[in-house]
Amino acid sequence: MITCGIVGVTGYAGLELLKLVEQHPTIHLEKAISDSRAGMTLSELYPWLQTGAQQLEPFQADALVGIDVLFLATPSGVSADYIRQLECFDGVVIDLSGDLRLPSNLYETWYGKPPVAAFIQTEAVYGLTEWSRDKLLTAKWISNPGCYATAVSLALVPFVQHDWIDPTNIIVSACSGITGAGKGLSEKTHHAKSNENVQLYKIHTHQHIPEIEQTLNTWSGTKATVSMSTHLLPINRGIMATITVQPNDDVSEDEWVHRLQNVYGDEPFIRVQQGEPEIKSVVGSNYCNLWVYKEERTNRLTIVSVIDNMQKGAAGQALQNANVRFGLEETLGLLSQPQYI
Amino acid sequence: MITCGIVGVTGYAGLELLKLVEQHPTIHLEKAISDSRAGMTLSELYPWLQTGAQQLEPFQADALVGIDVLFLATPSGVSADYIRQLECFDGVVIDLSGDLRLPSNLYETWYGKPPVAAFIQTEAVYGLTEWSRDKLLTAKWISNPGCYATAVSLALVPFVQHDWIDPTNIIVSACSGITGAGKGLSEKTHHAKSNENVQLYKIHTHQHIPEIEQTLNTWSGTKATVSMSTHLLPINRGIMATITVQPNDDVSEDEWVHRLQNVYGDEPFIRVQQGEPEIKSVVGSNYCNLWVYKEERTNRLTIVSVIDNMQKGAAGQALQNANVRFGLEETLGLLSQPQYI
Amino acid sequence: MITCGIVGVTGYAGLELLKLVEQHPTIHLEKAISDSRAGMTLSELYPWLQTGAQQLEPFQADALVGIDVLFLATPSGVSADYIRQLECFDGVVIDLSGDLRLPSNLYETWYGKPPVAAFIQTEAVYGLTEWSRDKLLTAKWISNPGCYATAVSLALVPFVQHDWIDPTNIIVSACSGITGAGKGLSEKTHHAKSNENVQLYKIHTHQHIPEIEQTLNTWSGTKATVSMSTHLLPINRGIMATITVQPNDDVSEDEWVHRLQNVYGDEPFIRVQQGEPEIKSVVGSNYCNLWVYKEERTNRLTIVSVIDNMQKGAAGQALQNANVRFGLEETLGLLSQPQYI
Amino acid sequence: MITCGIVGVTGYAGLELLKLVEQHPTIHLEKAISDSRAGMTLSELYPWLQTGAQQLEPFQADALVGIDVLFLATPSGVSADYIRQLECFDGVVIDLSGDLRLPSNLYETWYGKPPVAAFIQTEAVYGLTEWSRDKLLTAKWISNPGCYATAVSLALVPFVQHDWIDPTNIIVSACSGITGAGKGLSEKTHHAKSNENVQLYKIHTHQHIPEIEQTLNTWSGTKATVSMSTHLLPINRGIMATITVQPNDDVSEDEWVHRLQNVYGDEPFIRVQQGEPEIKSVVGSNYCNLWVYKEERTNRLTIVSVIDNMQKGAAGQALQNANVRFGLEETLGLLSQPQYI
Repeated sequence: MITCGIVGVTGYAGLELLKLVEQHPTIHLEKAISDSRAGMTLSELYPWLQTGAQQLEPFQADALVGIDVLFLATPSGVSADYIRQLECFDGVVIDLSGDLRLPSNLYETWYGKPPVAAFIQTEAVYGLTEWSRDKLLTAKWISNPGCYATAVSLALVPFVQHDWIDPTNIIVSACSGITGAGKGLSEKTHHAKSNENVQLYKIHTHQHIPEIEQTLNTWSGTKATVSMSTHLLPINRGIMATITVQPNDDVSEDEWVHRLQNVYGDEPFIRVQQGEPEIKSVVGSNYCNLWVYKEERTNRLTIVSVIDNMQKGAAGQALQNANVRFGLEETLGLLSQPQYI
Repeated sequence: MITCGIVGVTGYAGLELLKLVEQHPTIHLEKAISDSRAGMTLSELYPWLQTGAQQLEPFQADALVGIDVLFLATPSGVSADYIRQLECFDGVVIDLSGDLRLPSNLYETWYGKPPVAAFIQTEAVYGLTEWSRDKLLTAKWISNPGCYATAVSLALVPFVQHDWIDPTNIIVSACSGITGAGKGLSEKTHHAKSNENVQLYKIHTHQHIPEIEQTLNTWSGTKATVSMSTHLLPINRGIMATITVQPNDDVSEDEWVHRLQNVYGDEPFIRVQQGEPEIKSVVGSNYCNLWVYKEERTNRLTIVSVIDNMQKGAAGQALQNANVRFGLEETLGLLSQPQYI
Repeated sequence: MITCGIVGVTGYAGLELLKLVEQHPTIHLEKAISDSRAGMTLSELYPWLQTGAQQLEPFQADALVGIDVLFLATPSGVSADYIRQLECFDGVVIDLSGDLRLPSNLYETWYGKPPVAAFIQTEAVYGLTEWSRDKLLTAKWISNPGCYATAVSLALVPFVQHDWIDPTNIIVSACSGITGAGKGLSEKTHHAKSNENVQLYKIHTHQHIPEIEQTLNTWSGTKATVSMSTHLLPINRGIMATITVQPNDDVSEDEWVHRLQNVYGDEPFIRVQQGEPEIKSVVGSNYCNLWVYKEERTNRLTIVSVIDNMQKGAAGQALQNANVRFGLEETLGLLSQPQYI
Repeated sequence: MITCGIVGVTGYAGLELLKLVEQHPTIHLEKAISDSRAGMTLSELYPWLQTGAQQLEPFQADALVGIDVLFLATPSGVSADYIRQLECFDGVVIDLSGDLRLPSNLYETWYGKPPVAAFIQTEAVYGLTEWSRDKLLTAKWISNPGCYATAVSLALVPFVQHDWIDPTNIIVSACSGITGAGKGLSEKTHHAKSNENVQLYKIHTHQHIPEIEQTLNTWSGTKATVSMSTHLLPINRGIMATITVQPNDDVSEDEWVHRLQNVYGDEPFIRVQQGEPEIKSVVGSNYCNLWVYKEERTNRLTIVSVIDNMQKGAAGQALQNANVRFGLEETLGLLSQPQYI
């Protein structure tokens, strides 16, 4: 049995982790941590959870002895505060915020907050699971990827790795369900504002842009530059990234599909598909579905990637990373299917 | 008083026209035409309309004497059938379908149906109102633009006209509310399928792509090529087009906004805006709102255009074209504001 | 020309009033008042409004000279504060909050706040327009009815007035769109909470319950008691009240419809309908649609009433009351149709 | 290992059963049956299912040898046809339609179709699991309750069983998500019609009304009569029933809650709760949540019941019944939690 703690159980990612861990056969919830609601029980917070008697505790670094893995399901900045207190923590830390994803200079530019110590950030393993397994096995700090970054990077790494496309000419149009905006109250997420609406936000300034570029640069010989627009949709969950790229090879659409299937054919959570993409094909699950289409008129490719932002884009991938880190079957506790209807 | 007939009153565009004409001070509904529901009264069809006693008639070309303007709010293919019967009709025909928009060869390729006679299509004036006023004044046939085409073309014509961007490098990601898919029943529009979903459809094959290219070519020295992806959203109305282009001039974002305001400053229905775009800023109205942003990192521009697909993207623009055609004030009957909340 | 001021233009009812007044031929917006946003212009707040240059002012009772009618589109408690300062105001005050609706003792019980002076409340005319026209003609204070109260009272007054039903056995199940919960941020109205949800709230404690009973008591010989449950729905606008009552007369369903049509046949904003009720048949308009059905098995009646909570349930009825008060055509500026699709 | 067949896998209930069985440790899918799609594989129908290679077969009664339990996830009328062919089938039949729920005369009145043979209907056990366990153990035919009937009966059986309320004075206002209307295409479920709408339907004629009365009569000394209104909501899943009753005992609200907890305290799928009811507290799970409130002013009780119409209201309860029938742990395969966000 592996013991875990979840910090930030009142937020959406924390809640999703609670639900996933509750059904996990090996990883056991030892501590539910929340500074704002310490003292309450889980069942007071979420009356419909099964394991309700557990009491919420405030974050205390020296009370974490015996915890094998600590999930930080806290916002950027808050995670950094906790990370600074966790240097002496013996277990593994998986941070779902952006605080371990970028080197200090980039972090300050895109997040506008003080970064964690550079030596910690450098040591952290970026947990895009399918592309990080070896490094994850011995990681102390795991930086869980951003939701948009997961969707886009899983789609594009094969293309830049094999030099199939021009990495300087990548246009991403992405959209996300409202949980992507977090649980905090804001005008943007007031139902009467968000409903029957599409809101374009953080234009040219979304912090997942440098994260994607950094990931692509790891696998590409040429420095990647990505333009990404992010749209907030009136749905609860899910991300779709529609990506337009310029291929280097003049091969058929079938061949592009075939190439992608070759890369991902054995992956339990990635499905290369054909037909018309829809976000519902993954919502409620840890899958990433991918499609690739060739536009004969322009010789451009359209690559489409969909994930559930709360699962593969947050809590699901975090648990997948924990499974890998502790040598468990990678799919343990993660095989729920999309709700679909 | 100008008399009009509306063909296809059971469809969404027909209904929107009914509502708009009901509140128009000068254009009067003389005939409500529907082959499928002939004999019913308007109030049986729409109990909440004000002018309910009127009876629906079947389409009969020789019964249209005295009608000044006939709106064809019928699907592609159906409009073509009616158009073939309207050669001797004395009034003006405004077709909301795609049947007059493209030359025969392009039409056959993209619509997969038999085109109308070439001489009629050639004679038809493409009614992107803001850019077609002179020609509209004497038109017999007016081809009302497609919804996506309206949103994208209003955004891009100024940029290609002045050679501000590379017309061969235009990437459009567009999304539409469900009324854009029409009133016909389909799995795609069943609530349990479309709700909490995003569906990408007609990938690389949307019939508005050649329409946009044709419009841009009218104003550009260089042949335009456009890649456009179209997403079906779980909202009723509205289109947002997020357009990525490569500018030829190295000027500031403020200057780009300024240039666009210079072009459209006097237009009653076009508003160049700043801040974060949202589709709700136009839904329920005939406005087209535009934004332009410069991405300093990549030197690309992001241009955003939003319209209500049922108004500026269909019935609203059709009525605007009728106003122009008959020398009325262009905004007559079209000044309803966005519902917003 | 009649001049008006609107207090609370940042809220939903204030915004709806702004939009309605903007299209009203006779009533002219003289002052847009907001304590929280004083100094901004309307166009900074709502870039898509047409009359944007106007500047928001703070509430100052002595700056209202020359205003014919002042709309208080402010929450309960806030309206009371302003009302206390308006004793010397020369114009008409139309309060959209609950602060003038109930006598002091009931107000304190149901609102839990200090009431306005009893003599003001007593003098105020309760503006359920269709049933208050005579009194409205000379009113200084007009108390605009609550949204649920409008829907339910318009349905039931004819039945209790003619002693058609048992007024002690009235069960109302009502549901409302999210704008009914106001613009303030709350967990209840966070999209991720409210979407795909129904939330039952204020069980047995909704402040519109005594308001409905008071209205029915005005018209009934027997004291009415009403049980009402209120459900918050994931839609923006609209109220449906499904009302179950015990009839005193054993007549057919057709006769019940006929009786209701006799009462309301000449009303411009009330439509007695047949077929299946839907909330969309009024949303975006000032109409109240009514249906009555007889359950033969149980001899109960089901009466259904739908309104747009922002129009007939708030701003629309306020303007209708203003039209009556100033001797204008009652429908002026209020004939917009339901958006429907 | 228990083998099952599912008839009607293309419908919503069939799909939900497929998903539940896929994750069930003991019940194994042997046959996926669909007359309309025979020959396709499951993965062609639902590319995101895990067990995709299985081929759909047409219904053939003599090809079912070796199947332990056959789920009929087919519409009323269609189930009846199959049931007539299943007299010689050796296994257990669980019918999710209404075809086994009512005696012939009531069935003909409310369903308007020819009933199954009376001896089969009489033999069938009505599977409201919590109240039918003994009879289920030996049932050949199990009639799975209707969705509204499940929600309402679970709430009311304790009250009529103990004579706590007047069974002749029960008013139910119920609402359902759109999956309740089935997968068939209809104007009512076209997104542009259903979205932002509430549609009241089958007024006084819903076929679950006699089903509820029959269940209550089984447990009550006095014949029950129920009035129920059913509202179609723009959400995918979930039912809320808000029930108003007249109590016989003058006890406190706490005592009512206590009484209900006494009845259901040991039930794994029923939770008596306090606070404000919401439909989301069960959607995605097999739970039924119950609340009871006392209105002091009127001495009425409001009882609220919520279920997921696809789980506890259909496929979930069917599997729960199968678990009971075959002596398995009742919760097997049914402990998924509500999705909540």
